Amino acid sequence: MQPLSEDKIAAAFASDKVEALDYDGLHYKRLTDSAGPVPRGSVRLPDGSVIPGYPAIGRIHTLATGLREQFSGPFQAEEKIDGFNVRIVRHEGRLLAFSRGGFVCPFSTDRAPEMLDTAVFDDEPRLIVCAEIAGPENPYIEGSPPQVVEDVALFVFDLMARDAGGFLPLAAKAERMARDALPGVRTWGPYTPDQVEAVRELMRYLDAGGAEGVVFKTDAGGGYRAKYVTARSSISDIELTSNALLDLPPEYFTHRLLRLALFMAENDRQGDANLERDLGRALLQGLFDASASVGDNGLVDQPFRCRFRNRDNAERFVAFLQRTGGKHMRFPEGGLYAEGDFWVLEFRRVRERMTSWLRHTLWGGTQFD
Amino acid sequence: MQPLSEDKIAAAFASDKVEALDYDGLHYKRLTDSAGPVPRGSVRLPDGSVIPGYPAIGRIHTLATGLREQFSGPFQAEEKIDGFNVRIVRHEGRLLAFSRGGFVCPFSTDRAPEMLDTAVFDDEPRLIVCAEIAGPENPYIEGSPPQVVEDVALFVFDLMARDAGGFLPLAAKAERMARDALPGVRTWGPYTPDQVEAVRELMRYLDAGGAEGVVFKTDAGGGYRAKYVTARSSISDIELTSNALLDLPPEYFTHRLLRLALFMAENDRQGDANLERDLGRALLQGLFDASASVGDNGLVDQPFRCRFRNRDNAERFVAFLQRTGGKHMRFPEGGLYAEGDFWVLEFRRVRERMTSWLRHTLWGGTQFD
Repeated sequence: MQPLSEDKIAAAFASDKVEALDYDGLHYKRLTDSAGPVPRGSVRLPDGSVIPGYPAIGRIHTLATGLREQFSGPFQAEEKIDGFNVRIVRHEGRLLAFSRGGFVCPFSTDRAPEMLDTAVFDDEPRLIVCAEIAGPENPYIEGSPPQVVEDVALFVFDLMARDAGGFLPLAAKAERMARDALPGVRTWGPYTPDQVEAVRELMRYLDAGGAEGVVFKTDAGGGYRAKYVTARSSISDIELTSNALLDLPPEYFTHRLLRLALFMAENDRQGDANLERDLGRALLQGLFDASASVGDNGLVDQPFRCRFRNRDNAERFVAFLQRTGGKHMRFPEGGLYAEGDFWVLEFRRVRERMTSWLRHTLWGGTQFD
Repeated sequence: MQPLSEDKIAAAFASDKVEALDYDGLHYKRLTDSAGPVPRGSVRLPDGSVIPGYPAIGRIHTLATGLREQFSGPFQAEEKIDGFNVRIVRHEGRLLAFSRGGFVCPFSTDRAPEMLDTAVFDDEPRLIVCAEIAGPENPYIEGSPPQVVEDVALFVFDLMARDAGGFLPLAAKAERMARDALPGVRTWGPYTPDQVEAVRELMRYLDAGGAEGVVFKTDAGGGYRAKYVTARSSISDIELTSNALLDLPPEYFTHRLLRLALFMAENDRQGDANLERDLGRALLQGLFDASASVGDNGLVDQPFRCRFRNRDNAERFVAFLQRTGGKHMRFPEGGLYAEGDFWVLEFRRVRERMTSWLRHTLWGGTQFD
């Protein structure tokens, strides 16, 4: 991770990679692409302060070599949660949650106040809370961590300062999170890079429990991070998305197969018949389902459901998805309705290529390949 | 299939899609791309006669609808052999075997005389014999049909006339093949398009025996053809090539997964735990092997071995592969040697992307995705 500086941030926002946006009267700018060390998704607020984009984290595939190659001193392991990444700030008295790409997320912004005690901003108003929002009723991703059984929950994993302030050191982050009772992720360690077997043991424990994986972190290098995921996470991702086999980038699947194979190899599980069958089933079941649903109603799609406190935010979210998700989004009549203290939004993401391929094929057409 | 005509053939060879080539003193031209109805790989010999490219055959995925959609009258089913397609002609007294792309294949040309009785050309010198060459010692593809246990064998599946003459009708083909004792493919039928269950029964029989599949053929429409493959064929292809997961086009894998799923669905085998495990193992084993071989000698590659009668042809073949296969081919010192009545050639096809990805990863590098 290259360090940020005020100069580089200023240069990035003076470049042509800037998009001006409006959210409910808030005029802000986001970086549409990385500019030198300043990540895509960095945001400039009307007061001139900048929320840096959350940096991309490299992935290791082999603990035996990866830990020693990536870390020269102690690191800790934090649970990686299967959700979506937001950066939450308090601006002029209200919480705003920004997506990885630098958009205000109307869903996360709607739900943030009940998931995060705003006292954390009282004596540090320029703080940025980096968190994963995850659960079965999230509007973006198919997966959900086992510990969230309904709706969504928030898991704080980093604290940053605005502008070129960078990550809070790990000890300061832990202290602040304990003091303000922020909902955090599980953390293990510290480990040294030669404690490969201890980290493997942790990964086997997480794999058995259905966790996605870990992010290894150190304060060195401005807060260097690397991630590593479980076998179960790769199979689960494939299972949830094989009905979109032709719609997602092929690397979505090939990279998960590689991760799975290397996890198995490192844990002496080559030839594990249960994992082989689970993988085969994960790939095939989505294809059977897709085929059946084209037979039933002519479409392969993925249902989403999420809950808002405020109807205006639900409507802003629909407009946001229509603008960014394009023609793949279907919002049925009556898909926004009150239920208890919530406004529930239901919508579907259509798998256009799977639908088209299966329609042609199931109706007897030929394919040339 | 659009019909050919002398005019269209002449126009194609007057276009800029023509490459002039030389093989051992034979000057010929090939079409580098389709030109109207004239397929890529069509060849013009020095006497001006044209060997049309073998037409692309569409694939059906569902017998229930595909047979009725693609055929309006009786058709027969011929075994599809897992090999490579050649067109063999006799020109000025010698046999020449052309690849699908329209190159003289030095390997097939070397071995054709012992696999095909040239008497077939005596009273029909302008005949084109369309055949699959298959077996464990073929130089192009990883797979091999179960009935060929060593070396290669030739399976004739069509007879064509030069220029715009088209396919011989099925009855005439059968008669000629019987008369001249040409080695043919197994043939079943005729079937009518509503005999779905009978064709499914045939496919289950072929699947159990490890066959690749069938090509359905009729004389209608100038000789219309459609193909359909077994579950076993899809799994076997994946098993043989998963060590090249990042090198082959992603569609190689995704399309085989779709074929497998639709074959299983049509035969009520959704949830078949054996097939699920076989698929998972087919994907994973090649990745384990690739990973181990990068660990051992630093390369993921696929060995090939084939036998020639004539050393000159082996050397022509090496030159041909170096020109068309490029940097992925490795010809080790001592890889061409005499053995009995043969010259044996051994070479390897390197999986560059798998090698590079695994090297970086196994040595502890990170990937960004």
